[in-house]
Parts: sequence; C-alpha cells; structure tokens
Amino acid sequence: MNKKGFASDNNSGVHPEIMIALTEANKGHTVAYGDDAYTREARKAIQHHLGERADPYFVFLGTGANVLGIGALSSSFHSVICAETAHIQEDECGAPEKFNGIKLLPVETDDGKIRVEGIEPHVKGIGFEHHSQPRIISITQATELGTVYKPEEIKEIAEYAHQNGIYVHMDGARIANAAASLNVSLREITTDAGVDILSFGGTKNGLMYGEAVVFLNAQAPDEFKFIRKQGMQLASKMRFISAQFLRYLSSDLWYQTAQHANEMARLLAEEAEKVPGIEVTQKVEANGVFARVPRDIIPRLQEEFFFYIWDEPQSVVRWMTSFDTTEQEIYDFVGLIRRLVDKG
Amino acid sequence: MNKKGFASDNNSGVHPEIMIALTEANKGHTVAYGDDAYTREARKAIQHHLGERADPYFVFLGTGANVLGIGALSSSFHSVICAETAHIQEDECGAPEKFNGIKLLPVETDDGKIRVEGIEPHVKGIGFEHHSQPRIISITQATELGTVYKPEEIKEIAEYAHQNGIYVHMDGARIANAAASLNVSLREITTDAGVDILSFGGTKNGLMYGEAVVFLNAQAPDEFKFIRKQGMQLASKMRFISAQFLRYLSSDLWYQTAQHANEMARLLAEEAEKVPGIEVTQKVEANGVFARVPRDIIPRLQEEFFFYIWDEPQSVVRWMTSFDTTEQEIYDFVGLIRRLVDKG
Amino acid sequence: MNKKGFASDNNSGVHPEIMIALTEANKGHTVAYGDDAYTREARKAIQHHLGERADPYFVFLGTGANVLGIGALSSSFHSVICAETAHIQEDECGAPEKFNGIKLLPVETDDGKIRVEGIEPHVKGIGFEHHSQPRIISITQATELGTVYKPEEIKEIAEYAHQNGIYVHMDGARIANAAASLNVSLREITTDAGVDILSFGGTKNGLMYGEAVVFLNAQAPDEFKFIRKQGMQLASKMRFISAQFLRYLSSDLWYQTAQHANEMARLLAEEAEKVPGIEVTQKVEANGVFARVPRDIIPRLQEEFFFYIWDEPQSVVRWMTSFDTTEQEIYDFVGLIRRLVDKG
Amino acid sequence: MNKKGFASDNNSGVHPEIMIALTEANKGHTVAYGDDAYTREARKAIQHHLGERADPYFVFLGTGANVLGIGALSSSFHSVICAETAHIQEDECGAPEKFNGIKLLPVETDDGKIRVEGIEPHVKGIGFEHHSQPRIISITQATELGTVYKPEEIKEIAEYAHQNGIYVHMDGARIANAAASLNVSLREITTDAGVDILSFGGTKNGLMYGEAVVFLNAQAPDEFKFIRKQGMQLASKMRFISAQFLRYLSSDLWYQTAQHANEMARLLAEEAEKVPGIEVTQKVEANGVFARVPRDIIPRLQEEFFFYIWDEPQSVVRWMTSFDTTEQEIYDFVGLIRRLVDKG
Repeated sequence: MNKKGFASDNNSGVHPEIMIALTEANKGHTVAYGDDAYTREARKAIQHHLGERADPYFVFLGTGANVLGIGALSSSFHSVICAETAHIQEDECGAPEKFNGIKLLPVETDDGKIRVEGIEPHVKGIGFEHHSQPRIISITQATELGTVYKPEEIKEIAEYAHQNGIYVHMDGARIANAAASLNVSLREITTDAGVDILSFGGTKNGLMYGEAVVFLNAQAPDEFKFIRKQGMQLASKMRFISAQFLRYLSSDLWYQTAQHANEMARLLAEEAEKVPGIEVTQKVEANGVFARVPRDIIPRLQEEFFFYIWDEPQSVVRWMTSFDTTEQEIYDFVGLIRRLVDKG
Repeated sequence: MNKKGFASDNNSGVHPEIMIALTEANKGHTVAYGDDAYTREARKAIQHHLGERADPYFVFLGTGANVLGIGALSSSFHSVICAETAHIQEDECGAPEKFNGIKLLPVETDDGKIRVEGIEPHVKGIGFEHHSQPRIISITQATELGTVYKPEEIKEIAEYAHQNGIYVHMDGARIANAAASLNVSLREITTDAGVDILSFGGTKNGLMYGEAVVFLNAQAPDEFKFIRKQGMQLASKMRFISAQFLRYLSSDLWYQTAQHANEMARLLAEEAEKVPGIEVTQKVEANGVFARVPRDIIPRLQEEFFFYIWDEPQSVVRWMTSFDTTEQEIYDFVGLIRRLVDKG
Repeated sequence: MNKKGFASDNNSGVHPEIMIALTEANKGHTVAYGDDAYTREARKAIQHHLGERADPYFVFLGTGANVLGIGALSSSFHSVICAETAHIQEDECGAPEKFNGIKLLPVETDDGKIRVEGIEPHVKGIGFEHHSQPRIISITQATELGTVYKPEEIKEIAEYAHQNGIYVHMDGARIANAAASLNVSLREITTDAGVDILSFGGTKNGLMYGEAVVFLNAQAPDEFKFIRKQGMQLASKMRFISAQFLRYLSSDLWYQTAQHANEMARLLAEEAEKVPGIEVTQKVEANGVFARVPRDIIPRLQEEFFFYIWDEPQSVVRWMTSFDTTEQEIYDFVGLIRRLVDKG
Repeated sequence: MNKKGFASDNNSGVHPEIMIALTEANKGHTVAYGDDAYTREARKAIQHHLGERADPYFVFLGTGANVLGIGALSSSFHSVICAETAHIQEDECGAPEKFNGIKLLPVETDDGKIRVEGIEPHVKGIGFEHHSQPRIISITQATELGTVYKPEEIKEIAEYAHQNGIYVHMDGARIANAAASLNVSLREITTDAGVDILSFGGTKNGLMYGEAVVFLNAQAPDEFKFIRKQGMQLASKMRFISAQFLRYLSSDLWYQTAQHANEMARLLAEEAEKVPGIEVTQKVEANGVFARVPRDIIPRLQEEFFFYIWDEPQSVVRWMTSFDTTEQEIYDFVGLIRRLVDKG
C-alpha cells in the first residue's frame, strides 16, 4: 500500500504545510458556508495573485469548478469550444453537458493546445436558432499533454474570442505548473492575458481537496452563489478549503511545489530518453511526460510503479510527477526501464 | 473570530481524533479515486454497522449524497415524497430537481416527521403518463426539527412503500444523533427498518467533509460510479474521506460525539424552559432545540451567540448543539437569556 | 369509434372553420420556421387582443407553452408557486422541473384558485443560497376545476407578485372559456390584470394543434428563440399553426366556441342536479362540471359516454363539454344518469 | 408570398392526399393522447413496412423524435457518435444534450456518411468512470449532404456497434427519399440492416407535422410513454398525426412523393452542371443538390428563388427539391442561373 509511482499527481498526499494549515484552522466555531475569516483572507490572497477584481468562489473539485464556471457564463443553448483532449471533453463523464445542457465542440490537437485556426470553423451559425451558439473557448493550462500556453498564445485566443463575443475559460488544474514552467506570475497567464474565468486548481499540487472558480475579466453573475449551491459544490465547513488556499498562496509554496514537480518531469524525460527505444512524444513543459515505450515492458514496469497507458495503439504512456517526487525515485524508475529494455 | 454559538453543527470544527486520522492517512502515494486501502477498510466499517450487503459510495457533501442517492433509484419522470421541512425540499436550492429532473412532493408536518396518512394522497396516477410516478419516500433521521423516527415508525413507512413499489430514502445527515437518542444501533433504524438507501452523514458530527451514499435494501445500479462522477462528487484524493469514516466508525466515536451533542441539547432545553417566556416548541430528541423566545431579546442574544431564527412570524429560533458544546456554554447562554428577559 | 362523450375537450375534433383555414394555407411554398406571412398576421391578431406589446411565439402544445414560458423567465435555482391542482404540477409528468431544473411549490386549494394568503408562506428565504428563490406565480385560467379568476383576483395576485419581484404566469389552456364566462375581453384578464406571460391555448377549443407563449408585461429574452428550438417546440411548417390562430382570432370564433361549451356545461350541471343523489361540487364557470355521483352507476355510465373519475375516494367525476357538444347529448346523458339512479 | 424555391423541403406545403386524410379524420370525438383507432391503424401500417416487432410512438417533430429516441436508449453518462454534419449535432440547438444530459461525439465526414474507421477512435474508455460511455451510433438516412447509405454500409456499422454493446439510431427525416433512391423497401435499410431505433420522418415529404420514434431491433423501455410526455411530445389530438401516417403509408404515396423529389434533384443537378462554372460537389442520391456557384450570382439568384448558402468560404449552396417541385421550375431556375453566369 501507498507505493509511489507516476500515475497521477492526485496519488500524492497533502503537502505538510497544508496539513499544518488544516490543523491550525481547526479551532473553535466559525460560520459555515463561507462567511468566515479564513475565506475572506483566502479571497484576498487570490486577489493578490490575480488582481483586485478577481472574484473567487471555492468548490470541492476541479470538475465542479469547470462545470460551474462554464455554467455561470452560459445558457443551455450555448456551445463551448475546447481541445479534443480537454478534461471537460474526455474526463468529466459528460458533467458539463448534464449540468449546463450545453454542447461541447472538440478541436483536434497534437499537443493539447488549440489555436485560432482550429477554433474558427466552430464560430458559425451566429443568431441562427437551430445552432448552439458559440459562447466560451476553454483552454487548459498546463494542458493534459504536459504542454504550456505562452502568455501571447493565450492573448491571441482571448482577442479572437472577445472580438466574437466569446468568453475565455481556463481549466487551471495545473496552473501553478504552467506559471513555474514559464517563470511568470499567475496573473500574466490569466487576468493579463485576457482569461475571463479560471478554474483554480490546487489538489494536484499538494492540497487535500478544494478548488476555486475565479471570475477575472468577466463578472460573476449575482446568482452565482445559487448556482454553486444547486451544483452541490458549497462546502459547509468551508474554512478548511480556504485555509488550504491561504497557506498555498501566502508564501511561494504553490511555486516551489510546482517547480519541483516540473523539474522532476524534466529529469525523468531526459533520463528516459537516454534509454534506447524510449521516445518522449510531447514537449515536457510541466509535470507530465508522454513517452513511447516498447509494448512488452509496460506490464512489468507497472508491477513496480503505478502509471497509465495513454495511447494503447501507439504504445504511449503517461508519467506524472508531483511535489513529493524524489530524484532517487526517478533514477530507480529509469534504472528499471533500462533493465527491462536490455532484457527485452 | 471563531466565537462559539448555537447556529449550526456545521460551525463546529473537526473532532481531534478525526484530525489525527487525516494526518495519519497522509503517507506516501495511494491510488486516486477510491481504489485504495483506506476506502476498502472504510467500506468494511460501514458494512459492520449497516450489514454485509451495505454498499457505500463516498461523496463530498450531504446535498450530493441526497441528490445522487435519489438519482440512483429514479428516472426523471418520477416523484419523491418528503416532509415539507426536508433538507431536499427546503435547503438544497433545487439540486434534486435540477440534477435528476424529478418532482418533489412535500407533505405537511408539524414535527418534521411524515406518516403514511400524509404520504398516501400522493401515491396516485400510477401508470398514467401525464403524472410523475411516485418512486421514493424520503425521510430525515434525525429530522430538521430535532425529532427522531422510532424504528417501528420507519418500518411502517417502509412497509407501505414497498407494497406500492416505492423505495425508502433516508437523509441521515444526523443519523448518529438519532441512534444515540434511541439508544439503538445504526442498523436498527436503517437496514433492519427497511430503508433502501441512506445518505450517511458525518460532517455535522465532527468530520471535516465527506458523506456516503449507502445502498442497503436496494441494490446500487452498476452505473452508479458514472452517476457519481458526472454528479461532480468523485473525490480524487478519496483516501482522506475514507480515513475519516474509518476512524469515525471503528470505535464508538460516532456514538459518543452524537450522544454528547444530544445531551447538551437536552440540557439547553431544560435550562431555557426555566426562564419565563421561553417555550420549547418541539420534542428535543437529537441535537436541536426549537424555542419560542420574546422577539425583542433575539438581536441582543445574537450579538453574543450565533443562531438562526427559524420562524420569524412565530418568533421561534433554532439552537443546535455539537460534539464540542460544553455545559459552561449552555449555562452562559441561558444566563444571558435570563438577564435579557429580566431586563425586557 | 368516435363516440362522443364528456371526457375531455381534447377529444373533440377541429372546428370546421379552422379546417378551412388549414386547407387555405396549403398553397405553394412558404419560408419554414416562422418567417412567413401567416405568422406575421397571427402575431398581429394576438396583439389586437392582448395589446401592442404582446409578443407571441408559437409552439406545439400546452405543456410546451407552460414549460418554455416558465423557463424564459427563470433560472434553475428558482421556484414556481402554483395550485396543487395545476396542470404544471399534476399533469405534465415533471416536464417543468426536467427542462428548467426548477422547483414547483404547490398551494392547497379547494376550487383550483390560489390567493395571496396561500402564496405568501412560500415567499421566503430570499437571497439565502440554500433555498430555491421564488420567481413565478402560475395561475390557470379557467382553472382545472372549472372555476374562473375574476380580473380583480388576478390583479391582487399580480400586485403582490410584482411587489416581491415575482412574475405572473397564466396557463391559459382554457382562457377563451374564462373570458366568455366573465364576458370580458382577453386583455382584461391578462395584460390589463398584470399577467406577465401567457400560455395561450386553442387546442381545447377547436384547434388541431398549436399554442402560443405570449410575453405581455414581461419582455421576452432575446434568446427565447433558442429556448424554443432547444425545447423541441419550433414547428418547421409553422404556417399551419399560425393560420389556425389567425382564423381563431380574426372573428369572434374563439368567443362563440368557448361560450357554447360553457353554456353546455351549465346546462349539464343544472340538469344533472335535478337528479336525486347527484351533487355538483364546484361552481360551473367554464366548460367543466365536477359532480359527486353514486359510485355504482359510474361504470355503467362510462359504457355509454367517455368521462374520467376525478376523485375516486369521494366518488367525484369530471365532465367536460366542448365547442361541438349538443343540447341533445346533454339530455341523452342526463336521461341515462336518471335511469341508472332510478334503477340503482 | 408563398413563392416557391429550393430552400427546404420544409417550405413545401401538405400533400393534397394528406390534407384529405386530415379532413376525413375530423369526425366526432375520439379518445385523446393516442388510444384511438387512427393510431392503432397507423401503428399497423408502420409494422407492415418495418416489421411486426416495430413499435412506433408518434411525436410532433423530427428534433423531438431524435432526442427522445436517443434518450430512450441512453443514460446521461452515455455518448452518441454521429457525423459532424448530423442534424443532432448541427441543427437542434443542443436539444440532445439538454434533454438527455449526454455527450455527442462528432466524426469528420466529407459526404455526410460515417464509417467504422471514423467511429472506432471514439469507442474507448469503456468502464472508466471519468469517460462518457459510448452507447449509440447515430446515422442520417438520407444524409444532410444528400447522400444515401447502402444497406450493406448500414449493416457494417450495425455489426460493429452490436459487437461493442452499442445501439444504432437512424435519423430518418428523409428516409423515404433514401428508400426511393436505392429502390428498396423501408425495411431493408432499417430493421433488416440492424437499425435499433428510427426517427421516422414525414414532414419533409408532404406531411403537415408529426414524426414517429420507432423501436426496431431494440425494445422500447416500458417507461417510454413517460419520456414522451415529459419530453413535451405527446399530442392531445393525436389522431391527426396518425391519420397522416396512415394515409402516407397505406398506398405508395410515400414512395411516389420521395421519388419525384429525388428525380427533380437529379434533373436540377444535371441541368445546372451544364452551366459553365457550376460544380455539383456531392453525389445527388436523394432530394438535395450541393453546388459550387460563382459567388457574385448568389444574391441575385436568391432574389428570385429561396435557397441557403451551405459553405460560405467555399461558395457552396444547397438546393432542396420536394414532392411538389415541377420540371418547369427547374428549367426556370437553371435558365436564370445561366443568364446570371453569362452576364457575370
């Protein structure tokens, strides 16, 4: 039990500092449902990073953040344009459609990123009542393929979106990894780049649970609190989500953890590529490594280390690192790969 | 900040033993999304209390448990019969209707409990396609009015329900308080009484977050895992919910905490009733006290202690106790009531 | 086959003049989906009756009109207050909840009408995110119990509603019967009485199919056309709905047919009450008669004439008349009742 | 007004024989909501064409048929694979997602048809709770691009589908045109080819309104009647839909009208291609012609004849013929094209 591996940054536990913050917040009574001091302070911490107008609402999980954030800015007759690899398209079991009644329009992508030329063909039928109306472009930062949008790439999408009366949503489940990778502030790749609404993730980077829907260049509808409640995302003991975010953002904890995970991914990619027959298939810009691996060694590797096959026909696997991955684990893992390849 | 009061059992924090369990579960990596040892053990702990066939699924919150549990046993053309005071009717902002597409049929109640004679008029139009088909009777244990169903009262409802092809759902947000109040096992008021599906709560009794949908006399549909995921209730780091339940149920922690809260409510009611002009309006069977209080003292009381007005026109307030309420707090509170009434 | 009876005004066919209108509209090609001359003219005809600001949208059926009209003015976290006997509550199989995600709040009623004192207890929890927000009061004119709201009764509800930021929806499946009964214009019981949105019915009064959602004192959202399309209520060959409404409203056809049906209901009630043991239980103000009838004669009556039992335990039946009911049919029917009672 | 053109087969009116059937059905009273003789006979007529096990349910419109048919065989966590050009994807304003909560997975297509190789990549993640589960493949016959699936092409898809536990849905808005084009029975391209559920259209081929959801190789769930009612597709005066289908199918009316429309499309394509600069871009197998046309003549052509631009950047237009298109109209239209091209 509790064997480490490279399956998911969700398999890691809680960062020790976050656990301390949880323990410290466990004092006495506090108003439930968010009207408490931890939540007020956590809001300010988010505004410090994302700008004064940033308007955050805490929820339980990333899928909740994506679904409610999209729902806040859309009606059921709208469509959302996203990468075919997006979490909202591939990994939320249809939650965005179910809860919001909307249509998702997937855009083909090789690297997890979408660009204006892939988006454009979906922006049509405006005003035509038979056609779902394009309303939101959703991008993931860092992407599900471990790549990262540069600020100017986001700006280009946002400019196109806003010219067409479309909002930009960012699934920031790994936004800390993206900022660390680019060595920029969180604000430079969100508010300043034209993002209207952000799913601000922390669970993949050392939090226990809890994410935030943050309105940036778009304003939260007055009724968003009802949407969150009806969306089953209003935590009664909200202080325990807020206290995590407060600690996460009050120092450079968010940055250090993300940078470390990124570093480990880069190391893993470098070392793995030295093994003959291993090919890294995506740029390693965040904390994920995608690699083509000889098919026959995969089951034996998985006996020792958790990880998932990404593309069965292509024999491509996904290895995720996290805030607590150690260099030793990387070397042990690559050592095993090498031995298995040699034997093969 | 963190002033104690009688507003809600959600305003209390996390029981120290639960906090220890969380800290202890924070070791190394573990498979995300529930395929971990903590979750397996927590399942067994629940089966120990509710019977071998009990089939639990952890979710984030009580509203989630209610909505998904109901959804698991119904289609959108079904109706759910419940007390007009039920949490699903009054306090979930329409989540059961929104997510499941169903109709709720509220039954009038004086004490938060419903009985067959109140349910019966809603069981009609069977097979008539114009009419939502009655499918579930939902009862709350302990009720929103601090009263408790006796095992035989539940059995009577369950018998009626099953004779009519209807399931029994129990919102057990305060089920520990009910069991402690009746001095019975959890099983006697659920599985053995004919309950088909239970929202098993813990947050109001010292957990940080997390509840469980537990299938008892009804079987979980194979697809329930998809319903939970699409319902935005699948926790990535599920071990931290499971570890709480495991600790909660492995000793008599659940019972002690609930009994203490109940005890404090009884004390509060007894003491408060000694003050002239204070009238307790509901039987105090769990951890809530409903009392008619002179209208003018309410704001001054609220300056010192949090609590909510329940029925403005009737000047009835609600006082909730929790696992960490102390006798001293009760005496301080009632002392203040007395001084305010005397002054009045 | 095609035996006449008193089961429903839906069992009648199409008024001959409407059939002629359909035939006459069947000339050549016309733009589909409503951008045609028939639809423009039908809009004007509705504005002639309901006021210049009236903004009608044709749909297929009454349930569609109710659901989309309510949906146009509400979000999923809203509630709709209506009579417990309302069609939206009892006879639409949960369509308002399913499509709109809203909550219905039924108000007890003896005569199918609701009043401010029954509505008021549901207008609570405003701004409280746990509680579905009251948004619409829906009344039925004429009611499902064959009674009719007077203009001043509607005004009183509308005034209360508007003071509380609530809209008034009218299910006007039998609005012609109500207007004929009161001998007032359609406008006096809708626009002028403060109704915000009307489901304007015709099918129960001689049309083949088609109803209209008409915005009166509330404005249609720009996006209503998308709501109608996504709501599966946009007719491709819309001219055939419009042509029916055009004929229905261009002369006093709507009034004559409704008045005749009302007249026949009054005659039926009068004659039936002459039979010992028959008791009419509701005021006969439109085209429905509710009567307590000796239990044993019901099956024998039904062998000859269609009709439905309304309240089994009370032995109350419902008899509906329609535009084509004849005096002879009434006398034949009552004759049979008398013979069965005499034999009994 | 009522100018003919080539915009849509929905712009045509009602076939005279259908109008007669409507008039003849307008006799006396008949039970509402489908328990009438017309509906029984129409069911038999459909079974005559589609096989004894065919189980039809009448609805108002094609979007309703598609949405409810798909909904009958799926849960909200399912996905539906279809052509990117499918009506359910492009032209129903998100109704399938809104009503059913499902995900649509569009497959690229050049000719409106999909094949196993395009479907296959979407059949993945089976049993994985994060991923919408593939449940239905939906094909359109004739396609939105005027092409037609051969029986063996349908069989190939159905075989693949059934091997993977997937149903086959056919949007048969123009199924008569497909059968006439292939010179096969309706059964050969539906029941016998493995189609599980059919949206059986008639409105585009001379009916006034009304379509049918027909269960073929899949069984209707017992509750389908509730789904239809809650889906706002249950007609009160259903006999008028049934009477149309009865007439449509009792002789070869359906075939003659479709064949004529197809014929006219072929003639239009042939004649138009004789004009220099006009290029027909899709095989003309049913009643639609897609053609690349000099951009500058389009607005002038549209002044005289209705039609829609299909692909603005490619200057491709869509011309639809219908049961009442005449050769003279074709020659007039092509004559105008020629004059405009010559002038150009």
